[in-house]
Amino acid sequence: MTITITAFERSPDRGAGLARDMRVRWALEEVGQPYDVRLLSFKAMKQPAHLALQPFGQIPTYEEGDLALFESGAIVFHIAERHGGLLPDDANARARAITWMFAALNTVEPPVFDRALCRILERDKPWYEQRLRALEDSIRNRLGALSRRLGDADWLDGAFSAGDLLMVTVLLRLKGSDILNEYPNLSAYVARGGARPAYKRAFDAQLAVFAAASSE
Amino acid sequence: MTITITAFERSPDRGAGLARDMRVRWALEEVGQPYDVRLLSFKAMKQPAHLALQPFGQIPTYEEGDLALFESGAIVFHIAERHGGLLPDDANARARAITWMFAALNTVEPPVFDRALCRILERDKPWYEQRLRALEDSIRNRLGALSRRLGDADWLDGAFSAGDLLMVTVLLRLKGSDILNEYPNLSAYVARGGARPAYKRAFDAQLAVFAAASSE
Repeated sequence: MTITITAFERSPDRGAGLARDMRVRWALEEVGQPYDVRLLSFKAMKQPAHLALQPFGQIPTYEEGDLALFESGAIVFHIAERHGGLLPDDANARARAITWMFAALNTVEPPVFDRALCRILERDKPWYEQRLRALEDSIRNRLGALSRRLGDADWLDGAFSAGDLLMVTVLLRLKGSDILNEYPNLSAYVARGGARPAYKRAFDAQLAVFAAASSE
Repeated sequence: MTITITAFERSPDRGAGLARDMRVRWALEEVGQPYDVRLLSFKAMKQPAHLALQPFGQIPTYEEGDLALFESGAIVFHIAERHGGLLPDDANARARAITWMFAALNTVEPPVFDRALCRILERDKPWYEQRLRALEDSIRNRLGALSRRLGDADWLDGAFSAGDLLMVTVLLRLKGSDILNEYPNLSAYVARGGARPAYKRAFDAQLAVFAAASSE
């Protein structure tokens, strides 16, 4: 059955690979599943046809036969559950890998995403510097804990898993920032994720979409 | 095997049931699993013994034999996977229930939690009113979408699931607020969750902890 995902027709990150379809593309590349992409304009994302698939009007979605899913975390989990390579076989190790999936999305991503939004939406507000510092303190709090737990390991718990995949995509939003550079083992972890052939294929695929839209 | 979770010795919400152990207690009550609770002071949460279980120094954790987990979403999923009653048997319906788990934690919770933090930490800042309004707009954006999707159904997708359990706990943080009252079907949804016998048992158990700590 064909897998179809949705992605931005013209990604606001200009092909930097930070949109959430990247997670799904990467997971599909890791498990070797081909997929089609349906591109959506910002306008189309808010139309009834898309809202029936994604009630919040966002990307990505995932369709396969009569199954339709949304939420990048849920889609990555669905892929990881059905194909080998993203979750360990051992039951306890599998539960721990799933824990890292939730930690990436519910503990580390919120302040990282808020910082990105703040830098776009609040830059001209009188409180900008103070609020940015508060967000960065909150990010440091998370990254410090994550860095101590990772130590000198390659991945968060044994072999590369869907937990690492999501955590790397969250941290990539800080790539090149002073804040990530304060944690050399996390910078190396992000680089290790980005060096995976499946990551590179996924990155190239989303970049090609942006390049095509820009050359129109 | 005994299940042991951790919770605040003295919850900052004074027993209102908003701390994240509530989700785990509720899930365990739904599936009829007894559990022990280890209470932690704020100081103990930052000590090495707890950080070994929970790298971010938070509650709850979940221990069962040689398995140790953290992240309320991952713990609820673990419970739902191993016991009947929180995930449908049908594979597609199960994947959709998991989608709602991620939607609750990664799409709806971040602005709801930010509003709660803002009301505590930023109340005396010059930008307070403006920032609160921006957060509430962002919450309305999510709740409007959720309300349209729920419609006049009892639960988000068929029978009550772990997705509803997490979504109700996220929305409970807005209980009694004008913002939740703007969406009568969501207020009714939260009330429906709170009326479940398993919810009530979990709520009473966490309230008893706070009452005991306060009478010392």
